[in-house]
Amino acid sequence: MFRTISRWLIGKPLENERMESERIPKWKALPIFSSDALSSVGYGPEQIALILFSIPALYAYFGAVVVAIIILLGIVALSYSQVIKANPGGGGSYAIAMKYLGVYPALVAGASLFSDYILTVAVSISSGTAAIISAFPILAPYHLYLDIFVLVFVLMIFNLRGVQEASTMFVWPTYIFLGAVFLTIFSGLYQVFILNATPGVVAVSDSPPMGMFTVLLLLRAFANGCSSMTGVEAIADGVPLFKAPQERNAMITTGIMAAILACMLGGISYLIIYFHLLPVEGVTLMSELVQHVFGRNIIFYFIQVMTMIILYLAANTAYNGLPPLLSFMARDGYVPRYFGNRGERLSFSNGIVLLTIGAAILILGFNGNVEHLISLYAVGVFLSFTIAQTAMVIHWHKTREHNWKIYALINGTGAVVTTFVVIIVLITKFIYGAWIICLLIPVLVYLFIKVHKHYNDVRDQLVLTSEGYKETMVPALGRHIVVIPVASPTQAVARAMRYAKMIRPYKIYAVHVCTDVARGEKVKKLWEDLEPSVQLVMIPSPYRQLTDPLIRFLYRLRRRVGPQDAITVLIPEFEPKKLWHRLLHNQSGSILRLRILNYLDVVVSTVPLKFKR
Amino acid sequence: MFRTISRWLIGKPLENERMESERIPKWKALPIFSSDALSSVGYGPEQIALILFSIPALYAYFGAVVVAIIILLGIVALSYSQVIKANPGGGGSYAIAMKYLGVYPALVAGASLFSDYILTVAVSISSGTAAIISAFPILAPYHLYLDIFVLVFVLMIFNLRGVQEASTMFVWPTYIFLGAVFLTIFSGLYQVFILNATPGVVAVSDSPPMGMFTVLLLLRAFANGCSSMTGVEAIADGVPLFKAPQERNAMITTGIMAAILACMLGGISYLIIYFHLLPVEGVTLMSELVQHVFGRNIIFYFIQVMTMIILYLAANTAYNGLPPLLSFMARDGYVPRYFGNRGERLSFSNGIVLLTIGAAILILGFNGNVEHLISLYAVGVFLSFTIAQTAMVIHWHKTREHNWKIYALINGTGAVVTTFVVIIVLITKFIYGAWIICLLIPVLVYLFIKVHKHYNDVRDQLVLTSEGYKETMVPALGRHIVVIPVASPTQAVARAMRYAKMIRPYKIYAVHVCTDVARGEKVKKLWEDLEPSVQLVMIPSPYRQLTDPLIRFLYRLRRRVGPQDAITVLIPEFEPKKLWHRLLHNQSGSILRLRILNYLDVVVSTVPLKFKR
Repeated sequence: MFRTISRWLIGKPLENERMESERIPKWKALPIFSSDALSSVGYGPEQIALILFSIPALYAYFGAVVVAIIILLGIVALSYSQVIKANPGGGGSYAIAMKYLGVYPALVAGASLFSDYILTVAVSISSGTAAIISAFPILAPYHLYLDIFVLVFVLMIFNLRGVQEASTMFVWPTYIFLGAVFLTIFSGLYQVFILNATPGVVAVSDSPPMGMFTVLLLLRAFANGCSSMTGVEAIADGVPLFKAPQERNAMITTGIMAAILACMLGGISYLIIYFHLLPVEGVTLMSELVQHVFGRNIIFYFIQVMTMIILYLAANTAYNGLPPLLSFMARDGYVPRYFGNRGERLSFSNGIVLLTIGAAILILGFNGNVEHLISLYAVGVFLSFTIAQTAMVIHWHKTREHNWKIYALINGTGAVVTTFVVIIVLITKFIYGAWIICLLIPVLVYLFIKVHKHYNDVRDQLVLTSEGYKETMVPALGRHIVVIPVASPTQAVARAMRYAKMIRPYKIYAVHVCTDVARGEKVKKLWEDLEPSVQLVMIPSPYRQLTDPLIRFLYRLRRRVGPQDAITVLIPEFEPKKLWHRLLHNQSGSILRLRILNYLDVVVSTVPLKFKR
Repeated sequence: MFRTISRWLIGKPLENERMESERIPKWKALPIFSSDALSSVGYGPEQIALILFSIPALYAYFGAVVVAIIILLGIVALSYSQVIKANPGGGGSYAIAMKYLGVYPALVAGASLFSDYILTVAVSISSGTAAIISAFPILAPYHLYLDIFVLVFVLMIFNLRGVQEASTMFVWPTYIFLGAVFLTIFSGLYQVFILNATPGVVAVSDSPPMGMFTVLLLLRAFANGCSSMTGVEAIADGVPLFKAPQERNAMITTGIMAAILACMLGGISYLIIYFHLLPVEGVTLMSELVQHVFGRNIIFYFIQVMTMIILYLAANTAYNGLPPLLSFMARDGYVPRYFGNRGERLSFSNGIVLLTIGAAILILGFNGNVEHLISLYAVGVFLSFTIAQTAMVIHWHKTREHNWKIYALINGTGAVVTTFVVIIVLITKFIYGAWIICLLIPVLVYLFIKVHKHYNDVRDQLVLTSEGYKETMVPALGRHIVVIPVASPTQAVARAMRYAKMIRPYKIYAVHVCTDVARGEKVKKLWEDLEPSVQLVMIPSPYRQLTDPLIRFLYRLRRRVGPQDAITVLIPEFEPKKLWHRLLHNQSGSILRLRILNYLDVVVSTVPLKFKR
């Protein structure tokens, strides 16, 4: 039944050969990987405005801050194009850092991206729901249900169904959103340049005071605006998902994304400055602009709805970024190996499920509150930017390709600027929640290292050479002792006895754990009638425990026999015909098996008796 | 770690011999089994008053209704004394009905009591919390946490610790509550008879109209008042917990409980009538009386607090009633057998846990709302009263003891009266929730029968006679084929191969499920170097599944070999040293084992490789 449901939700399994056709062309890759970055125009300029407009005199710097962010965006995008070229296997900052900076920076990058991707999902879904709720306040009491519904039944399911299906689902809303934003920008510019619309009234003010405080405010505005840049990394993490030629397509897509984002940021900011729009409580700056350009009509509502949808889709960027990243880390043994396995639909299903669970915990833990979640945000992304670009500088230094000094200069500048952004973000957000990330990243790095150590230990203990195999097989095969636990003599026990005789052991012990003396006597008598040739060992159990006394018996037996001798515990088990029948039997067989394997070096065999009704 | 916590919460295991000393004397049995019934004086008279005082003219019948209830209480208590005598093994209505009326009435009694005991816990805890909250409204938002805390960490844990400890915990509050109630009654009577307190002013009214409507109201008041009688059954269910002489002690305890309850009901009702107290919104009638007698001083608050505590303790009655009842039904095979097992502390731990889960579901499902829960209440108890007393009539008829006709008359009257109460309760409460019980009881009875049928099927399929054993062992032992799944050649596989050779099978198949062609080739090459004498069977798996292709292979193999041949699947497994290491490995071995046992008639053996780090 579980299978049927999952088939219906996830779809039929896909063959390995389908992998190539599951790869995505550029026009699909753009919305899939960039909805996070692109959607940020909805709140990016506002984040700058909220700081600058607190002091009217700082208004003049709005344009300068936007230009600085666009330049930074250009540097970061250029840098990531180079990451893609230098590292076509995907894995972004993590892979490139592993290659040029060593394990620890790579793990810091991995941990940073891990926390930021999960935050992306939680923030995007929560803010999408917040948008819907501000339109339909009647939904407010159900906001968490909405969050979880979108998370599980839209994002998780569609991503489990595979890349192609997820993209088809998500492509059009992104393009419609882009169309709507550009329509707004062009209409605004048309009004400004052709219709000569009157500019907004600028409040008279003194010349801006250039003190330390002003500089700090400008920096904070800049850092806030940088939140538009989360998600730029996603393409570099997902190169293997692109259609061939993968690197070229991924680089072009990065460029297109950066160009679109820059145009939107620039256009919207220009119009905001021209019309001199100010942040108003409860209304986004973006919706103020739309209203100013079109009036409060059908276009206004349409753009609002598209903004809500694009926010949900921004979460999808993380679904295309984190699972491939985890698969890289799994291949290197820093996270559990199964994150590297492709599921039946060729998606990295374990990573998708982990991301969903992580985001659900964050949403529930913060009660779907965007303001609190956003405080944790952006530290991770800029940390990974810094690491990636530092790694690229070393890359250029080592390869010394044509023009390597220019490239190194670009990446070096990027590294310095993003380091600067990390420091600004940490200072301005530390007490509001960024400290959680400062704790989380070292903890994650510690876990990655522990996992890696375990896998190394496992490899050392599992590795088998021809000589090792011979050494295992050479010592004389010892004696083989079979132990059969007998609760009472039943058909299941008879089948186990038959099997025991078949494998011709040196000796068979039947053992009865005696929780009730009278019943024990009865079992002993019955046994002696059935099988006088095999002695029934009675183990007293005054506390009515079943497994503990048996384990003590086996422990003593194991010590008595030689190391080359083998002990097999044959558990007579019946297999009920229907699933619910299992509820009617205590699971002492399974518990016994698990505890024996946990404590003792013996083989445990289950001899099933299959019930027919 | 789990063990340490549970030891600390539950205590050390107790030996079978401790059973006798775990048995309880009368003075402890009274509060343990009767807190439910005794606490009902807190709301019983009020339930009558709420109906009668709606028409002032009916006031005159208050006394009559109370007298009727006390008479009914006497009949029921007398009847249950006789149940105890006729059925000293315990099990109450269920056991006596099984003996004299047959399976179906017994199962109906069992289902009725099952639902009513769970309701008792949910209602008592919810109303205890409601009482605390009306004193400390600041706790209101946490009422469900309080409910669940009391349920799990007081009631469940103390009952799991065993009867003696639970009783010690619960004895004193009950006696203090009884003392407080009798103090109120004696003070009131002292004021009435010695101080000649002025009686309450009776509103002038016409003579009571004796129409159909009046009769219905009187019946409803009577039925409502009967809620005081839930819990009378508990002693008869728990006879085996009493100190010897068990029956005598249980009968005496029943008598004492009925006498105390009758005195309290009578005294309180007399004072209510004398002072002519009327129900007031938000204040219980009981607290009105206490306030009238003592004024609003320290005694008033003390009695209020004791009332809260006794309500929590009323839930404990169910903990002493349901688990023994379930153990009786388990012995007969109508509920899963493990409800008949005593845990390490000699308590019926599975029944205690089931009751806790059931009550938690009800509390959470009804959001801890007493008013809604109480509508489901009392149907079950009176249904079981009726069944028990009908059974007793047949008992007397069969045994024809001295004075049997008088006894039969008492029980017969009881049966008629309680049938009448069931009908009244059903009619007056049906639409408010009693319909749920009307649905639940048949469903439970159906489940009991299905369970019983399954156990009969199991017995038939497991039963082993000497001849049956010989038949199983006689056919020639066939060939033995071993199948070893090989993911890659590791030390674990080497150990499995060694073991396979030790049990000397007819043939060994090593099989590799090939999810990746390139990797498959590598494994094949490695294998041929290690063990050229055993062929590695390659099973292609284009959908990257591991278990399905292997199960299909085993299925075909099973069909190819003879019925007397055995197939063993040897699963090479490694046992990590630390628990958290298990999280780092996919559980494909365990899944494989479960699915093979579910689908196929083959032996599954786990050959462990124990990791040292």
